[in-house]
Amino acid sequence: MVKHYEIFVNTKDEYHTTYIGDTVKEHVALSGVKNGIVSVVTAHTNCGIIVTEPLDCILSDLDNMLHTIVDDDAKYSHAHFLPTYGRTSANAYGHLRSILVGNNTVVSLVDGKMAMGEAQEIIFMEFDGPQKRKIFIDIIGE
Amino acid sequence: MVKHYEIFVNTKDEYHTTYIGDTVKEHVALSGVKNGIVSVVTAHTNCGIIVTEPLDCILSDLDNMLHTIVDDDAKYSHAHFLPTYGRTSANAYGHLRSILVGNNTVVSLVDGKMAMGEAQEIIFMEFDGPQKRKIFIDIIGE
Amino acid sequence: MVKHYEIFVNTKDEYHTTYIGDTVKEHVALSGVKNGIVSVVTAHTNCGIIVTEPLDCILSDLDNMLHTIVDDDAKYSHAHFLPTYGRTSANAYGHLRSILVGNNTVVSLVDGKMAMGEAQEIIFMEFDGPQKRKIFIDIIGE
Repeated sequence: MVKHYEIFVNTKDEYHTTYIGDTVKEHVALSGVKNGIVSVVTAHTNCGIIVTEPLDCILSDLDNMLHTIVDDDAKYSHAHFLPTYGRTSANAYGHLRSILVGNNTVVSLVDGKMAMGEAQEIIFMEFDGPQKRKIFIDIIGE
Repeated sequence: MVKHYEIFVNTKDEYHTTYIGDTVKEHVALSGVKNGIVSVVTAHTNCGIIVTEPLDCILSDLDNMLHTIVDDDAKYSHAHFLPTYGRTSANAYGHLRSILVGNNTVVSLVDGKMAMGEAQEIIFMEFDGPQKRKIFIDIIGE
Repeated sequence: MVKHYEIFVNTKDEYHTTYIGDTVKEHVALSGVKNGIVSVVTAHTNCGIIVTEPLDCILSDLDNMLHTIVDDDAKYSHAHFLPTYGRTSANAYGHLRSILVGNNTVVSLVDGKMAMGEAQEIIFMEFDGPQKRKIFIDIIGE
């Protein structure tokens, strides 16, 4: 059995994190699939999907790390006028952060529930917002 | 066909790596699934799952890199008393390293065997041990 | 339904990126699977699979970032004579970059087409070329 869903997140700032675990759970329940895997993938190249503990202090440390490794103010090749964008691109760091944290996750599905550790939460990361963002949820199993 | 397993690793140190490929292979054999994919996901937010060549020198270089990018002694927001933990948290770097290396991997399953390159091994990474850690293995296919 | 394919890329330089999205799409069409997921995994520990926007300027910024985080000229433990290689290993940085960007991706498959954002392209990254490289494509669904 295969179920496909698309969900949307309105991100609130240029750099923004949103918990999406509950929304994913709702779609798992809706799917009727009891055992298998759940794939969660962002449709955007300036966003990420991670699994970590949903504490503000951890997300703040993550924010610092991603801004240290990938400097907002570095000289980027991507920072030039792009005819396809119709404007000067200023989101090179967003692409780089997206590649570092990854754009998808896979979760076990057991007896109708996602099998995750107590501290684990699925988090959507925006690196070039605020924007309306799309996330694909695929649930595969029996 | 869907098979779900949970395996456990007793990590030996605060920062510790363990080869889990053979254990995953045993569960693939047990599952009876011949073709499909194998998903391997840790249940913890201070751990990682990677695929690399199982050489001590590479793991040592990885250790150095993860300690350079994510400094043990940096000032972390997460380093404060957390009522839900009942203690002062001191594992911010573990969360960050987990996010950088990722918490899951997917492997091809062909004719009853995991299709991997000769040099590839599945490795469990502990960033806040020693602890007993859980890993989910899901095998989906025919 | 499960379909497994192996594709090959001849990389052109030590550090090299190749778009493989079109090749993956051809195999999706060939598979006859209409809905499910597509797993793309490299067979090598010095390579990566990422999803980002296929612009030279972004790939150049990524190149810079990976060479800043993981220095070609650092002292690596892995840089010694390895009997199993029959030569002195000089690709520690390749392993590290591979772990940072990840060695696989998962894509949604809907009505016979990969569901991806407009800007998303699947990219194979070589960190120790030029070599002939293998990539596993698994398509699972209905």
